Amino acid sequence: MEKRIVNVACGQLGPIARAETRTQVVRRLIELMREAKARGSDVIVFPELALTTFFPRWALETQEEIDSFFEKEMPGPETRPLFEEAAKLGIGFYLGYAELVEGPRRRYFNTSILVNQKGEIVGKYRKIHLPGWSEPQPHLRSQHLEKRYFEPGNMGFPVYEAFGGVIGMCICNDRRWPETYRVMALLGVEMVMVGYNTPDDHTDVFDFDILTTFHNQLSLQAGAYQNSTWVVATAKAGLEEGSNLIGNSMIVAPSGQIIAHATSTDDEVIAAGCDLNMGTVYRKTIFDLARHREPEHYRLIVERKGPGPILPVRELD
Amino acid sequence: MEKRIVNVACGQLGPIARAETRTQVVRRLIELMREAKARGSDVIVFPELALTTFFPRWALETQEEIDSFFEKEMPGPETRPLFEEAAKLGIGFYLGYAELVEGPRRRYFNTSILVNQKGEIVGKYRKIHLPGWSEPQPHLRSQHLEKRYFEPGNMGFPVYEAFGGVIGMCICNDRRWPETYRVMALLGVEMVMVGYNTPDDHTDVFDFDILTTFHNQLSLQAGAYQNSTWVVATAKAGLEEGSNLIGNSMIVAPSGQIIAHATSTDDEVIAAGCDLNMGTVYRKTIFDLARHREPEHYRLIVERKGPGPILPVRELD
Repeated sequence: MEKRIVNVACGQLGPIARAETRTQVVRRLIELMREAKARGSDVIVFPELALTTFFPRWALETQEEIDSFFEKEMPGPETRPLFEEAAKLGIGFYLGYAELVEGPRRRYFNTSILVNQKGEIVGKYRKIHLPGWSEPQPHLRSQHLEKRYFEPGNMGFPVYEAFGGVIGMCICNDRRWPETYRVMALLGVEMVMVGYNTPDDHTDVFDFDILTTFHNQLSLQAGAYQNSTWVVATAKAGLEEGSNLIGNSMIVAPSGQIIAHATSTDDEVIAAGCDLNMGTVYRKTIFDLARHREPEHYRLIVERKGPGPILPVRELD
Repeated sequence: MEKRIVNVACGQLGPIARAETRTQVVRRLIELMREAKARGSDVIVFPELALTTFFPRWALETQEEIDSFFEKEMPGPETRPLFEEAAKLGIGFYLGYAELVEGPRRRYFNTSILVNQKGEIVGKYRKIHLPGWSEPQPHLRSQHLEKRYFEPGNMGFPVYEAFGGVIGMCICNDRRWPETYRVMALLGVEMVMVGYNTPDDHTDVFDFDILTTFHNQLSLQAGAYQNSTWVVATAKAGLEEGSNLIGNSMIVAPSGQIIAHATSTDDEVIAAGCDLNMGTVYRKTIFDLARHREPEHYRLIVERKGPGPILPVRELD
């Protein structure tokens, strides 16, 4: 079969200190971008909330402090050089950032954008599955307060025609939820890009936390395989303000095979040529969704948010 | 946390020849049952279509020949000894078989039942995701004609209170579909039992087929982890009438960890004590479905059967 190659890079970031400015971070992103371009990449995927330290680990005191982590415009004065460099190099990018929408009521989202090789924004996504809590949990040694700072995304899981294929986005915790990939598969997605910040101390339950890298990999591989799509996953990594972020950026084929994998917890580029036609053999056989799915039996997936009572057994027809 | 242990076994079957009678097969099932009981099991999971050879690999000529692979009653004369032995030993079982329902129109299902420690049927499931084709595919060296012999299950994905927990069932190909586990998770499932017959030559595409055991494992681990449930998966295995069935029966914890794994393609018992409370840490944190799911964004999962056009981006609110 003819190939339809997209050359993709993960632009993994090592830790970002709280004191680091956006200008400093953008300089690091530009370095990663240049390396990716030098290795032939058409597009580079940066992490979630890639412009600052991962602030949801803290209960911030003032609105002003909170807002200091958010972008009111994209590009803004500090991020414009990234767009300019992208246009100059002819490389696209996925960028995660905290988005503040001004208006009658201010809205806060955990957002990603897709930028084409001319430096133009061609896609946007707002994180739907916000992990953690809205209030600090006294029983936990480390906090995760995304529900405090963001509201759930309000755009669904859109996909975009870009880079010669159909591209979808999700953010961090979204990648653990099979619904994320499935909705995009039903829109014809061929490559899902995902940025993440994943600490190794989610639950304070050691038996759980030691499996964090395994769970990351399992979720990415299953999402790719079960939806016949590429998954390009980029971490913020390393010891950031006392919190260990797992890294392990990777590129996963529609077969579920990992074809590129980061080996550090620093700024690091990994890259691969991804044939968007590779998913076809899966889509025409085991995962020919239109032939094999039976949505009438899936209704509970939209009718219930969480688990509810056992229903009496009922035969249709 | 207090434990709630169910002792489970997989009763993996080696190949069943076409000439083998149900009486002979039931004798093998009873042997596996006795071994499982001797190893302390409360319940044993047998494969899909466990009473005969895997007949959907053939295009059978006559209705009489087709019907010869189906059960008109359960238990029937040849299967009753299995139920009697279960009651005598005090061990439950999951059994897959081809079900023929008499009536105004005859109906054919790929079915499993759950039997309690008194030998009573306490649950039933009919396979929803039928793989393969209704007509032989001339371009394929090996055929898979489940869509010819069965109609899709009409019971949804019911769960049952049994063995001190909430037990669900699925069959073979169902295990690759995230919807299968998710519907049961929304009914509170704590253990999913699945029997399968999986040949290593699904697609005739070597690049795909060599990954068959990886895809089996990936699907089972993801289903368990993403739904905080045990998964107990039992294969028919080995070279059966010219077709290689992959085996690799396994028991997977809610962490996604494999805690027992078959090592042969013969009749083989594997067993483990499964703490039904183990999923709780997941259900209370990362997979607290009621706190984290956003069903309004999942509607396409029930509104579309297969992929359709890209939708315009639309913001809710």
